[in-house]
Amino acid sequence: MFNRILVPFDGSVGGEAALEKAAELAQLCGAELNILTVYRHHSMLEASFSMVRPSDPGNLDDVMQDHAREVAEHGKKRAAEAGAGNVRAFIKAGQPARTIVGFADEHGNDCIVIGSRGLGSVEGYLLGSVSHKVTALAEMPVLVI
Amino acid sequence: MFNRILVPFDGSVGGEAALEKAAELAQLCGAELNILTVYRHHSMLEASFSMVRPSDPGNLDDVMQDHAREVAEHGKKRAAEAGAGNVRAFIKAGQPARTIVGFADEHGNDCIVIGSRGLGSVEGYLLGSVSHKVTALAEMPVLVI
Repeated sequence: MFNRILVPFDGSVGGEAALEKAAELAQLCGAELNILTVYRHHSMLEASFSMVRPSDPGNLDDVMQDHAREVAEHGKKRAAEAGAGNVRAFIKAGQPARTIVGFADEHGNDCIVIGSRGLGSVEGYLLGSVSHKVTALAEMPVLVI
Repeated sequence: MFNRILVPFDGSVGGEAALEKAAELAQLCGAELNILTVYRHHSMLEASFSMVRPSDPGNLDDVMQDHAREVAEHGKKRAAEAGAGNVRAFIKAGQPARTIVGFADEHGNDCIVIGSRGLGSVEGYLLGSVSHKVTALAEMPVLVI
């Protein structure tokens, strides 16, 4: 039914539920499972609004990238435990919904499995959740968990 | 993975695409497939705004119900052709998104497969599409095609 399933994973409880369903679906279809952890670049503009200034802003990007890599690797382990045989983990910086859909287009994913909670933010709450935006932007089927 | 899948079907092209994916998923899971065609009751209030008055308003409900039954039966046939073994067709009157989610709750559906286009209306366009509303209201996974 599907050949290469994408599951965005942020390490949240809602993300874990989506990850498990994605692993189950991948196993059922004999599909490859791609796990994507999206992180945001540290922005000097955002930092300028913050009351707490990091002593070394350059390092913040590295810290966020390292954290994203840990989350993605944790997701890969969980997906394998949930029965997925062919799992690859990726990290990518950017705005969540557009980064997820862009990744799916580039990597030939024919299905996106996404949690409906857990990826939110105040901005997301106001403009529509990440899962809603992904559903609206994506041209492939989206399974919202 | 799923035991009883619900696919709302309105006879549109988007609805047929969702129906085919739902049939495929049902076959893959060995699940029962429920097809639901939602229709609206003829409203005397709406009719009062219309420039064209039906000569026999009582019959309009019957006509809409008959049409819904035809659409649902057509969907059942298409789902069987697409490989689903255990298919049941239903019709129900009401507001689309709430009727779909209410049906899924009552009938123990553990997944809803829905087209992202084809169920729209001007009201739907303004307030958010039916698939968006179903995704927001449903507590079970929703596959948006």
